Amino acid sequence: MPTLPTEADFADALGAIRATAPLIHNMTNIVVANVTANALLAIGASPAMVENTEEAAELAAIAGAVVVNLGTLSPDWAAAMRLATQRAQQEGRPWLLDPVAVGALGYRTRLAADLIEHGPAIIRGNASEIVALAGEASGGKGVDSTLGSDAAIDAAKSLARRYHTVVAVSGAIDYVTDGSRLAGIANGHPIMTRVTGMGCTASAICGAYLAVLEDPFMAAVQGMAVMGVVGEIAQGISAGPGSFQVAFLDTLHGIDAGRLAQRARLS
Amino acid sequence: MPTLPTEADFADALGAIRATAPLIHNMTNIVVANVTANALLAIGASPAMVENTEEAAELAAIAGAVVVNLGTLSPDWAAAMRLATQRAQQEGRPWLLDPVAVGALGYRTRLAADLIEHGPAIIRGNASEIVALAGEASGGKGVDSTLGSDAAIDAAKSLARRYHTVVAVSGAIDYVTDGSRLAGIANGHPIMTRVTGMGCTASAICGAYLAVLEDPFMAAVQGMAVMGVVGEIAQGISAGPGSFQVAFLDTLHGIDAGRLAQRARLS
Amino acid sequence: MPTLPTEADFADALGAIRATAPLIHNMTNIVVANVTANALLAIGASPAMVENTEEAAELAAIAGAVVVNLGTLSPDWAAAMRLATQRAQQEGRPWLLDPVAVGALGYRTRLAADLIEHGPAIIRGNASEIVALAGEASGGKGVDSTLGSDAAIDAAKSLARRYHTVVAVSGAIDYVTDGSRLAGIANGHPIMTRVTGMGCTASAICGAYLAVLEDPFMAAVQGMAVMGVVGEIAQGISAGPGSFQVAFLDTLHGIDAGRLAQRARLS
Repeated sequence: MPTLPTEADFADALGAIRATAPLIHNMTNIVVANVTANALLAIGASPAMVENTEEAAELAAIAGAVVVNLGTLSPDWAAAMRLATQRAQQEGRPWLLDPVAVGALGYRTRLAADLIEHGPAIIRGNASEIVALAGEASGGKGVDSTLGSDAAIDAAKSLARRYHTVVAVSGAIDYVTDGSRLAGIANGHPIMTRVTGMGCTASAICGAYLAVLEDPFMAAVQGMAVMGVVGEIAQGISAGPGSFQVAFLDTLHGIDAGRLAQRARLS
Repeated sequence: MPTLPTEADFADALGAIRATAPLIHNMTNIVVANVTANALLAIGASPAMVENTEEAAELAAIAGAVVVNLGTLSPDWAAAMRLATQRAQQEGRPWLLDPVAVGALGYRTRLAADLIEHGPAIIRGNASEIVALAGEASGGKGVDSTLGSDAAIDAAKSLARRYHTVVAVSGAIDYVTDGSRLAGIANGHPIMTRVTGMGCTASAICGAYLAVLEDPFMAAVQGMAVMGVVGEIAQGISAGPGSFQVAFLDTLHGIDAGRLAQRARLS
Repeated sequence: MPTLPTEADFADALGAIRATAPLIHNMTNIVVANVTANALLAIGASPAMVENTEEAAELAAIAGAVVVNLGTLSPDWAAAMRLATQRAQQEGRPWLLDPVAVGALGYRTRLAADLIEHGPAIIRGNASEIVALAGEASGGKGVDSTLGSDAAIDAAKSLARRYHTVVAVSGAIDYVTDGSRLAGIANGHPIMTRVTGMGCTASAICGAYLAVLEDPFMAAVQGMAVMGVVGEIAQGISAGPGSFQVAFLDTLHGIDAGRLAQRARLS
């Protein structure tokens, strides 16, 4: 299977998202729920946020993909996440795990270990989270990584192999691996670490790609490339973290395969 | 009773909102809570979001209007909504039901059926939600409608008559009916479907009008007209869904009756 | 101890926040969680929002400061706030109480009275909230104050003395007192009352200063001065409440001690 997308691949996937508006069941946190819904709408998907035990599995069964983000947990939300990911697995719906602050806090670290048994198609986190999830260290400072993404490549590969999944590590360079293939995406800009929810948004966008691509590795590579390229363009037309957010959504809404292929620095 | 507002009607209601800053008890979801609070502040109202069973009824009893949005339910929130709407009914406080994703998910469909017994002054939803609530179909794809608003006019009238309420259907043309009167508002822009919470914001704005107008039909017509006109103006000065949101709040804050009367395409 | 910060004081504290990126455990509400996280990131701090009983105390024990905002309570959140503030007190971690709508609603008024026993370093609220907390009146209209800040100076002093804490009152002029010292900050702009979460953001920013300054009084004065100066600058380059929010984050990200010292109207 190929490691890097061509312009035609970018065009096919983006076109599929915009043509079919896949329903993305986004179980995310109170900090970024608005931002990730808007990013999904901007790229052309149809987001729905449902985190109660009565409805989460019902929605997972009909979603194009499920995104599970551990940012602001509650016992009810955790239970809903268990039900939704179990149902997604049963129904063959792809789902993505975003292990926010795993390693830094015990409860969510145990929850992530349970959820991972339900077969996520992609795990996307920062270096501290991925290293912690692989069982190699105890994690970052709150939600922020204390490691560079390079330091998590081995952990990402090991995690991908152990769970037959794809792991994406965000950082100055983003890495995506399925245990054998490894891609690097050298886009993005440091201002993205000064805006809350860019990682959560990356997970949501990868979720949109999961809904339209068979290969989760390619979904993660394309999703991370979109994030990085759009972030770079947005940074160039903004004056700080406030205007960056505005420019990010405007740019994401208008992004096309030509600019993605031209600006993505993939390796 | 009149069907369409004059410029003087627009001026009176907007002036009343800005002069009295009515307290709007906005029981809404984690995705749009910030956006709807800002829209209420921008038009001149005083929003408060309280969704726990300890306080929801207490606040409903002193609010100018209560807005109940089913977007991101939990069992506690659902219980709080039951208490708040019951109390609003007892105290004669008008309240609005926004049946997000009703028809698509069972739990909230049953909850909406219960809440409606507490006598909402307005029900505002998209076509799929209104058709589902009227018992005529099983609903849309997640939170997005799969029907045009025209297709929901009969269901809206039937619902309005059955519950002695006003029903507003959002779409390319918005419709408002109390079962006998029917108004159409042909404003707005498709970009509004690429920004999360525009429907929830419409509900909140209608709530602000409910607090200052005796006639819920006129409150819904004026509220929907404000949304459509402000959305159109904002679209004209924005470059995508990010800058649209900024322009929407700026425009809403400065809107006046003259522009509303001039630009509203009412029928 | 000094009452007013010099330019060197502004430079030292802002430099410390940006150099150390203190972890701020921000237990806040669903309306403003995104906004306050972004404000903390913009000034250089590292926010984390955790409001469940499983993790709140664990995070409080390692945080640079804890900010507790009562905006949208639930029984679980209230329990988590009790645990987190108790743990913060035990571990000597400074924490700030933002008593949103205390006085207007009974449940949160009782909760605030309990939490205050855990020794907040700062209490920051509007005049109605501070007067209610001091036991002198029954509070404002929902979340908005019905009193000017001048009317709360005596209550603030009394509250500060009784609980050996620092009290900050937001208003046209912000006041900060520790019972003996009293500072006034005559910055800001009325547009800030038309944007949700400016008070909650002030609390979060004061929390960032608490993490780097020994003297909570000076932390509150500097935090409120930053809010007021940044708000003024942002208002000057914006066209309404939407663009104000964008300009606020951009300006906060780029603020420096020179401009703070030059524009802060302290007394």
